[in-house]
Amino acid sequence: MNEKLILENLRNIPDYPKKGIQFQDVSTVFKNAECLQELRNSIVELYKDKGITKVVGIESRGFVLGSILAAELGAGFVMCRKPGKLPGTTRKASYEKEYGFDMIEIHEDAINENDVVLIHDDLLATGGSMRAAHNLVSSFNPKKIYINFIIELDMEGLQGKNELEGLDVTTLITVRR
Amino acid sequence: MNEKLILENLRNIPDYPKKGIQFQDVSTVFKNAECLQELRNSIVELYKDKGITKVVGIESRGFVLGSILAAELGAGFVMCRKPGKLPGTTRKASYEKEYGFDMIEIHEDAINENDVVLIHDDLLATGGSMRAAHNLVSSFNPKKIYINFIIELDMEGLQGKNELEGLDVTTLITVRR
Repeated sequence: MNEKLILENLRNIPDYPKKGIQFQDVSTVFKNAECLQELRNSIVELYKDKGITKVVGIESRGFVLGSILAAELGAGFVMCRKPGKLPGTTRKASYEKEYGFDMIEIHEDAINENDVVLIHDDLLATGGSMRAAHNLVSSFNPKKIYINFIIELDMEGLQGKNELEGLDVTTLITVRR
Repeated sequence: MNEKLILENLRNIPDYPKKGIQFQDVSTVFKNAECLQELRNSIVELYKDKGITKVVGIESRGFVLGSILAAELGAGFVMCRKPGKLPGTTRKASYEKEYGFDMIEIHEDAINENDVVLIHDDLLATGGSMRAAHNLVSSFNPKKIYINFIIELDMEGLQGKNELEGLDVTTLITVRR
């Protein structure tokens, strides 16, 4: 894994979405063809022998590598979306955010008991949305659930890895700010 | 192209998002591993010799095949998003919807004059958002712009192909309702 290539292409945007936050912008990684190949190859290497049948991507940056991984691993791709975006019958989970609550949804027929699931998102910060996604996917009772992030943020006040303790999590790169 | 496989997995949701609309739900296509392989291979076949350097996906269902195509074609992936979702400096285009206007954005540094661009979305209905995306991508003055959809809706009152007349458009499947 060429960490240097990815870190050179990751963009830090200060004070976004609000003052004091150092936003890690992966769009500059995604637009770089070499980075996309590197991320694809590195994550596929981790999961190619796991028998993954469904990759769940978290809306919407998680759709990017999530769908690439599904195609590479020969799995189906499942969208985990914000409320009201999926047209069919859904199953929901809510999670706490800094102010108030947020909700995510998956279609009721998207996962079954024979699936081996990889949940992917671009960035691990607090881990709240991934914990909710894991709870939601667990409720479908699949054989096994793996979790992958491209980037783990290591900052004061962020306990993403603690929030996901006990789960089967991989991250490719740690960013310290 | 195995049209039958895709059509069998495409779900029609009546009266969504509102009464009278027959919503074509591609989530049931994406979650099927065989469909995902079929779509990837069919679209790659169309563009493998075009020298594509950037694939632009339209938020957010367009991110799914869009990013798979970028990885397969050895291109970078660019997100075309709803307003306020991209953290960097953006370029914007607005377009008319049934009621009022909507806007899309692309990062200012996402495309340049040396790029050959493929814009991808899942479904062609009115063509309004794709026309806006094409206008926006054109403003970056790339060498060439191609457009691809998985599905073209052929229904009374929809003139998607007319709206995009003169542009280099491919669609894989036509759905008549």
